[in-house]
Parts: sequence; C-alpha cells; structure tokens
Amino acid sequence: MAKKLILVRHGQSEWNKLNLFTGWKDVDLSEQGKQEAAQAGKAMLEYNVIPEICFTSYLKRAIKTLNIALDTMNLDYLPVYKSWRLNEKHYGQLQGLNKKETAEKYGDEQVLKWRRVFDCQPPALEDDDERNPRNDARYKGINPNEIPTTESLQDCIARCMPYFNVVIMPEFKNHDTILIAAHGNSLRGIVKNLKNMSEDEIIKFNIPTGIPYVFTFDDNMNVVKDEFLADEATVKALMDAVANQGKK
Amino acid sequence: MAKKLILVRHGQSEWNKLNLFTGWKDVDLSEQGKQEAAQAGKAMLEYNVIPEICFTSYLKRAIKTLNIALDTMNLDYLPVYKSWRLNEKHYGQLQGLNKKETAEKYGDEQVLKWRRVFDCQPPALEDDDERNPRNDARYKGINPNEIPTTESLQDCIARCMPYFNVVIMPEFKNHDTILIAAHGNSLRGIVKNLKNMSEDEIIKFNIPTGIPYVFTFDDNMNVVKDEFLADEATVKALMDAVANQGKK
Repeated sequence: MAKKLILVRHGQSEWNKLNLFTGWKDVDLSEQGKQEAAQAGKAMLEYNVIPEICFTSYLKRAIKTLNIALDTMNLDYLPVYKSWRLNEKHYGQLQGLNKKETAEKYGDEQVLKWRRVFDCQPPALEDDDERNPRNDARYKGINPNEIPTTESLQDCIARCMPYFNVVIMPEFKNHDTILIAAHGNSLRGIVKNLKNMSEDEIIKFNIPTGIPYVFTFDDNMNVVKDEFLADEATVKALMDAVANQGKK
Repeated sequence: MAKKLILVRHGQSEWNKLNLFTGWKDVDLSEQGKQEAAQAGKAMLEYNVIPEICFTSYLKRAIKTLNIALDTMNLDYLPVYKSWRLNEKHYGQLQGLNKKETAEKYGDEQVLKWRRVFDCQPPALEDDDERNPRNDARYKGINPNEIPTTESLQDCIARCMPYFNVVIMPEFKNHDTILIAAHGNSLRGIVKNLKNMSEDEIIKFNIPTGIPYVFTFDDNMNVVKDEFLADEATVKALMDAVANQGKK
C-alpha cells in the first residue's frame, strides 16, 4: 500500500476571529474552527484516506482539531504524539496584539515584512514577559536555548523539521498513513521540504484550514502526488484564494 | 514530592442513559457525561492535584472524558497513552441488550450473577458476530487469544493489571502524578490491587463517576492515603450510595 502523509491545518481560533497575532498563545478553537475539524474528519472518511498514527503540537487549537477529526472518524483510539516543535511560528512581542493596531504602531510595511519575509523576526519577548515560553511549565525540561522568544518563518521551519525528519518520517516503517494536525507555518516547513519549494514560493503558499492535504510517496519515499481532499470546485476556489493572497 | 495516582471513571454514556449493557461497544458520552468530565478537571485544579502523564482505554467515552478534563485544566498538551487493556469489562452477548429485557429473558438471578459474581462470565460472542472484537480493525496486531469475547470481573482485572504494573507504575520514576481515565471495572482491578481488597469487597465497591479518586504513595510506593476530590457532603453521599448499592 502506498505511504501517505496527511496534513491538517487547524481551523478558526478565538483569536483569529478577533484578528490578534496568536503564535504560541494557547487559544481555543471557535465554533467555526470545531466545524472545520469535523469536516476534515469527514473528508478523510469520504476519500478513504485513513490515518494510523497522529502527531500534533502542544497548542490546544491543533490538538482539539485532531481530537475532533478522530472522533468524527471513530478513531479516537489512535496513538497521538504531541511536540512543541510542531507549534505555530512564535510571534514574539506581537502575540496578543491586534493586527490593525500593530500596523498603525509599526507601519504597514514593517508588519508585512514580519509576515512575509522569510528570515525576518518580530521583536523578541523580554525574559520576564509572562508570554515568554521559558516561563511556562509546559516547556520545562527543554533546553531554554531551544525555546524561542520570537521566530522568523525560517526559525520556525528550523525547529520543526528535526522532529519531522527524526520522529515522524521513520514511523512509515510501521505505518502506511500518518496524520499531522498543526499550524500554518509549521506545516509550511513540511510542505517546503516535500515539494522542494524556494523561500519565496513557500511564503506565498497558504495551506487552507480544515482541508486534509495528502502527500503520496513511492517505494523510495519520493513524493509522487499531493492533493487536497475536497471536490474540484472547492479546491479551485482555495487555489484561487491562495494565488490572490500571494498577489496582495 | 509525594507520588500520586489519580483515577477518573468516565461519566454517563449514551447507552448508560438507555440502560443497555455497553462493555467494549464504543459509545459516546452523553451531555451529562461531558459535564462530569469537565467537573473532574475542575476538581483536580481546585485540589491542586495536577497530572503529568495520562493513560486511557481504546473507548471514546474514556478518551473524551480525559480530553475534556485536560482541556478544562489547559493541559491538552500532556502525553496520553491509550491501551485496550484499560477497556471496560467485556459483556459478551449481553452487549447492546437492554438490562430490563435481559432480566426478563435470563431471569433476575442470572443477571445479578453476571454482574456480581467475581468469576462469572456472560455467554461469549460467536466468531462471526459483528460485535466480536477479533473482527475489529482497532484490535489487529494483538494476539487473538488475548482478545476477549466475554469476561468475568476476574478476567477483566487479569488483562488490565499487566499494563498497570508493567507500563503505568514504572512511569513514577519520571513523574510525580499520573492520571488514568477508564471504566468502572478496569479501575476496580487497580483499586483492588492498591487496597488489597478481597473479591467480595471489590465487587461491592463502586467508583463514583467524574470524581477524581487519588492514591498517595510513600517513598517505598506503599499507599498511605486514598481520597475523593470532592467536598465532605458529596463524598458522604457517594459513600452512602455505594453502601446502598452493595446492599441491593
């Protein structure tokens, strides 16, 4: 059986709704986000792409997306592994700020740079900032030098990929189908790697939320196909939306 | 810090509501069951008994109880391990039958024996029964001789305890507080073992649903205290209910 990797990006969170920079802040899914998660589960059933083992981040919007999708498939019992390395990009001092206010304070151009330049970091959190993950019990036991206080997309990808390469991919020895439920930017690292995308290409590539994105491998673990589990019209609309976002 | 083991029995399921024998049938929590799960999370917070690693069964009523309790505590990111060995007692051919109809068919005395005699098994499922777990994908990879088609309480305890002793208890080397979310009868095995109860005592002992039941150990891993995380009046009411159930 061909090996398949399924990526699911979590749906709307309470802070997406409020238009706040979220990053590592552990905000909940909105009702719409929960529906997107259930829809992802339905799509995997409909297209008969059934996971055997699952990975997710330390953030509840991704964990709950996974739990809801598994519950929809009656696969609650599957093994689930959680890692901080699959967390969203850390937005440093921007976390918790309104995107509109941030643009007013720092200027549109600077905000666009923070969001769109591959190696551009927002200002880092101070040591005593309550938002600093080095002060958060869930990250104790990790080398503090590895815990970010801000990240560019490049940084996010650099801490995500070792986990993908060292922990996730080797599970294909034991399993045919692996599911990762995570975030826009941590998933970008995986997509960039699997599709050999340039920095510019991956920045412009927006993974749609709640639509399972499936990579199929040949026997040498080369990618032979990537597809979204949705009907053609939905995929086209998503692709157009992605293209238009890239043009903005 | 003293080592603590927290047991949480899942709350009401859709089939509890309908008064059906459930066993290994993977039924969902009712709304009341979800509220009981959240209440268990609140109690752990209130009494400051905070888990670091979690175990549950392959059945969604226990898994979702755990997920909801963790979410209530903002501990969604904790590691969770799932094992079929923590499943509820298998009720064989009784699974899916109404308890009242079963009593009419087999007689009150026989049903009471199936429920109350330590080593009494209900009739086993046939090989081709769709309820037979040997035909269920989730149990593939397990030696079929280990997968029950019916169980007495004795059988249930016998397949649960190796996992408790070999996998769960050794985790106290790495963690101070362990949480198990499971079922009335698989948890009975653990309680019987920790409290050195007789067969007769454990059959009469009913663990209340949704109330964390905490065992505290000394440095030699002897139990020095066991307590329910609820106020005195609630605990007394639960204890009276347990005593009365024993008398029935």
